[in-house]
Amino acid sequence: MHSLLEKKGFILDVDGVVGKGKKPIKPAVEAVKKLMDLGKKVVFVSNNSTRSRRIYTERFRGYGLDVDENQMILTTYATAEYIREKHGGSRIFTTGEEGLIEELKLAGHDIVDYTEADILVVGSNRGINFDIMTKALRMCLDKSKLYYATNPDRIFPSEDGPIPGTGMIVGALYWMTGRMPDCICGKPETVIMNKALETLGLEASDVVVVGDQIDVDVEAGKRIGAKTLLVLSGVTTEENLEEMIERSGLKPDYVLEHLGKLFE
Amino acid sequence: MHSLLEKKGFILDVDGVVGKGKKPIKPAVEAVKKLMDLGKKVVFVSNNSTRSRRIYTERFRGYGLDVDENQMILTTYATAEYIREKHGGSRIFTTGEEGLIEELKLAGHDIVDYTEADILVVGSNRGINFDIMTKALRMCLDKSKLYYATNPDRIFPSEDGPIPGTGMIVGALYWMTGRMPDCICGKPETVIMNKALETLGLEASDVVVVGDQIDVDVEAGKRIGAKTLLVLSGVTTEENLEEMIERSGLKPDYVLEHLGKLFE
Repeated sequence: MHSLLEKKGFILDVDGVVGKGKKPIKPAVEAVKKLMDLGKKVVFVSNNSTRSRRIYTERFRGYGLDVDENQMILTTYATAEYIREKHGGSRIFTTGEEGLIEELKLAGHDIVDYTEADILVVGSNRGINFDIMTKALRMCLDKSKLYYATNPDRIFPSEDGPIPGTGMIVGALYWMTGRMPDCICGKPETVIMNKALETLGLEASDVVVVGDQIDVDVEAGKRIGAKTLLVLSGVTTEENLEEMIERSGLKPDYVLEHLGKLFE
Repeated sequence: MHSLLEKKGFILDVDGVVGKGKKPIKPAVEAVKKLMDLGKKVVFVSNNSTRSRRIYTERFRGYGLDVDENQMILTTYATAEYIREKHGGSRIFTTGEEGLIEELKLAGHDIVDYTEADILVVGSNRGINFDIMTKALRMCLDKSKLYYATNPDRIFPSEDGPIPGTGMIVGALYWMTGRMPDCICGKPETVIMNKALETLGLEASDVVVVGDQIDVDVEAGKRIGAKTLLVLSGVTTEENLEEMIERSGLKPDYVLEHLGKLFE
């Protein structure tokens, strides 16, 4: 048994850790089941800014995992909750798509056009267009408007090759206006991680953060002061591990081929 | 009569100098007529990356100006010609819209999908979408592909407010990949200005560069070593003139309220 199994809580990244795209990573799914059977507290943290918790819960149940919506800490949800905690129910214009809009509404926000909005929320959108970018640009130029972004990811590795992440929109707006978001909620930033700790009801010292990307997951874990486990079932591989460590200047506490190796 | 009228050639910016949007600036149009009547050589240089020369020629004839397509040095045309001069007829994937595609084809290039292309040409597109951005991203990630951009403008002042310029796409790609274009053809870069000089058949010392933006037009004029005239009929106004000079660190040789003042 791995020494990390002494920890009470596990914050698990999704893509590259539990699944790849919509497909499960089978030994990892088995490991999640065992963790829950052992009474460990488990939450799933994802920078996906286009899905709601409901969609992820359905997907995980399809893997045979008996999970609850409350265990799904997506950046859509974390962003919506954080804005509610800081500013109450707000009038929001978002670049994002259905999953983000669903979570923003569930948190009590009104989704309005940009001229009526107090807060711009940038999230990825596969339906992004010139009109949405123009509205986001005009909000950015207005210093009286608040500007949140779900996550900073620049490129997302999809099944048929790299596609733009939320960072495409953040970068375009920065290039045009010189303005960065007032707050980015996703990993490696701490908003989403603090939400995960709050949901677990645990201190960072009782928790392991597991992910497949050093500059995203390991960095996020280190920022909250938790132990970090890097798995080589996603973006980081045995081949590029040393390069990734060198480039980020960060060393995970543990490295395993995949999550199932916790039990070998 | 203004001392600039001793010069043989005039390189005129379009928007904010001769017209505003589709409307003419009447005293400026009259001044252009007088310049041509005096036998001055005149070309129009624009960073507009969505129109062909044909469209601009029609618009100018509507103003009552007897102009020829060859006098229209748009960044669409300058980019298409420059690529032909450097690489011959090429296989190009472009983010741009109809006007750019028209000029690329006229210069002998083939417009193909990104997997077939050797050169990425970024131009603005009011129909920009996730699919186009994904293809441009993938070409940028491939170091064997050349990458040209029509112009660097980050924001374009439209009639109903600011809209994204070509720079939105350049900035998004830079943010995602760390890659800037191998060559930007529009002002203040020199590709388009050299094309204008070549068309005039004149040396820079015989020419005046006229524009409404210090960091675009005046800078472009200074880079080729021509005299520069800033007009206050567009982006730069009497109110923001000092700020614009300070911000850019550039001082135009002459400043006039509008082009018509050349003859007062």
